[in-house]
Amino acid sequence: MTNNKLAVIAFGGNALLKSHQKGTYQEQIDNVTETCRCLVPMLKAGYRIVVGHGNGPQVGNVMLQHKAGKETFDVESMPLNFCVAETQGSIGALIEEGFRRIFAEEGWDRDTVTLLTHVEVDANDPLFDNPTKPVGPYVTREEADQFHDETGDIYREDPKGNGWRKVVASPKPIRIQNIKLIRQLADQGIIVITVGGGGIPVAQKDGYLKGVQAVIDKDLASAITAVEINADEFYILTDVPKVYINFRKPDEKALDTITVSEAKKYLAEGQFTEGSMAPKMRAAIMFVEKTGHTCIITEAGRLGDDSCGTRIVADER
Amino acid sequence: MTNNKLAVIAFGGNALLKSHQKGTYQEQIDNVTETCRCLVPMLKAGYRIVVGHGNGPQVGNVMLQHKAGKETFDVESMPLNFCVAETQGSIGALIEEGFRRIFAEEGWDRDTVTLLTHVEVDANDPLFDNPTKPVGPYVTREEADQFHDETGDIYREDPKGNGWRKVVASPKPIRIQNIKLIRQLADQGIIVITVGGGGIPVAQKDGYLKGVQAVIDKDLASAITAVEINADEFYILTDVPKVYINFRKPDEKALDTITVSEAKKYLAEGQFTEGSMAPKMRAAIMFVEKTGHTCIITEAGRLGDDSCGTRIVADER
Repeated sequence: MTNNKLAVIAFGGNALLKSHQKGTYQEQIDNVTETCRCLVPMLKAGYRIVVGHGNGPQVGNVMLQHKAGKETFDVESMPLNFCVAETQGSIGALIEEGFRRIFAEEGWDRDTVTLLTHVEVDANDPLFDNPTKPVGPYVTREEADQFHDETGDIYREDPKGNGWRKVVASPKPIRIQNIKLIRQLADQGIIVITVGGGGIPVAQKDGYLKGVQAVIDKDLASAITAVEINADEFYILTDVPKVYINFRKPDEKALDTITVSEAKKYLAEGQFTEGSMAPKMRAAIMFVEKTGHTCIITEAGRLGDDSCGTRIVADER
Repeated sequence: MTNNKLAVIAFGGNALLKSHQKGTYQEQIDNVTETCRCLVPMLKAGYRIVVGHGNGPQVGNVMLQHKAGKETFDVESMPLNFCVAETQGSIGALIEEGFRRIFAEEGWDRDTVTLLTHVEVDANDPLFDNPTKPVGPYVTREEADQFHDETGDIYREDPKGNGWRKVVASPKPIRIQNIKLIRQLADQGIIVITVGGGGIPVAQKDGYLKGVQAVIDKDLASAITAVEINADEFYILTDVPKVYINFRKPDEKALDTITVSEAKKYLAEGQFTEGSMAPKMRAAIMFVEKTGHTCIITEAGRLGDDSCGTRIVADER
């Protein structure tokens, strides 16, 4: 009776942190457990599951902690790839605890594992020359100038006037380390947690894969994971049940099923917000184009319902 | 020509950080790469390898960063199990990068993977009632009183007069999560990095495995891993080539091979320093008693030499 489908599920930021919360440990563990519980219908249906997740607020906090730790206690600050690795550890542990709790509630003898995951980017990716992704704390213009002189890091002024922020490159993910292992473990029925925060960025330099200062888009990294393990379905979880066009206008419309061509058209029209739905839609398009399979963008609470979310499907079925 | 033996190797603190260093990123990555390179002779000989590691200075730094981040930027501080998980991520990533560099240098098509590892302790372990393991930053007596009132955490005065420090329980590890997976992956020839910092501590509470505030001894956690996967050899790396008795006395003697009974006798005599060689020797005794196999305590640079280190062997061979 089990479908035995292989699904990659990218947890959204609100899987860990709701916008009105401070982000205490208890809040994060409660949120993540709630999200894990939403996967029960899929697990009962027989899905093999690989979980990806973001780390936006968490890695921002780690960078703040490094900055404060340096100023207050002279603890060495660490580069961004190290900070991403820290969040893979902490968030992975929270998700594992959430799943173990669900397994206990359901009386299941199942396993979950978090693989620390390095993701390769191209050291010559032109996106390295034009860092645009703001990360970490806001600083004053004077601090920004000082940090730039000290480290070479690039700072840009926040368009909303909150101050200056370090900007880093967000190069394209090209290869997921240990990808065969991810598939192998999922095939064993283990819930695999991977590509946390888009993955720890590495690039070929000096003959080996070296950590680089960058942030990889987690939906794109999850999409590549889904392509490479040949997932049957790719889910991108967010905080709305469906994707809208003409959002907050009189002719607003929730999308049920759209083809890749329609998705591209809407994207070109600017229907989706940059930094929010637009990158999710790009990841969806990439997955559907490369596999011919379906991507579903929805909220966690709707999982297991065959009509849930917005389904992006191949042009010819 | 390959021996195909399975070895667990517990990296010591100086695998990442030498005592005279500040602990910059570059220092840590250089140190860890050097340690990984010391494993080349064993890898060439055909060993399957599982790596455990400590996190003492690193988790202390994370706790300082959390404290400073709370004070400076009001970022929520996280409990100790979360901090340990952060260091499993960051240190695991450094060790992986080290091994990938070695693989590239040697022209090997090999894999390494870091498994985030939860380790179960007994919620009723009497050691929870008597926390003794100092962790995190030194504070004043007034701060210690204040933090105790706020959180219930216990603080003790440092015997060397550096101030007051939080003390946490160091309960006995009883079960390594995903232990079968560790063995399975090692058998595939993958270098598995696991039980970082002794593992993320969890205990059965409310019907599931819940994170608890504790620190698990990394040598003991590595020893249990070695027992559970039935390792042929267990290596504990430290910063001396051999273990000594009558250390720094006229009759100082380096130990080549000792039986478990001799090891216990020396331990009872107080020959080994608490917080340093004594816990390593206890871990060694546990492994040898449970498996009948040999534990080797040595420095990384001696690996691959059959006469390296101090070998603790079973009483009857």
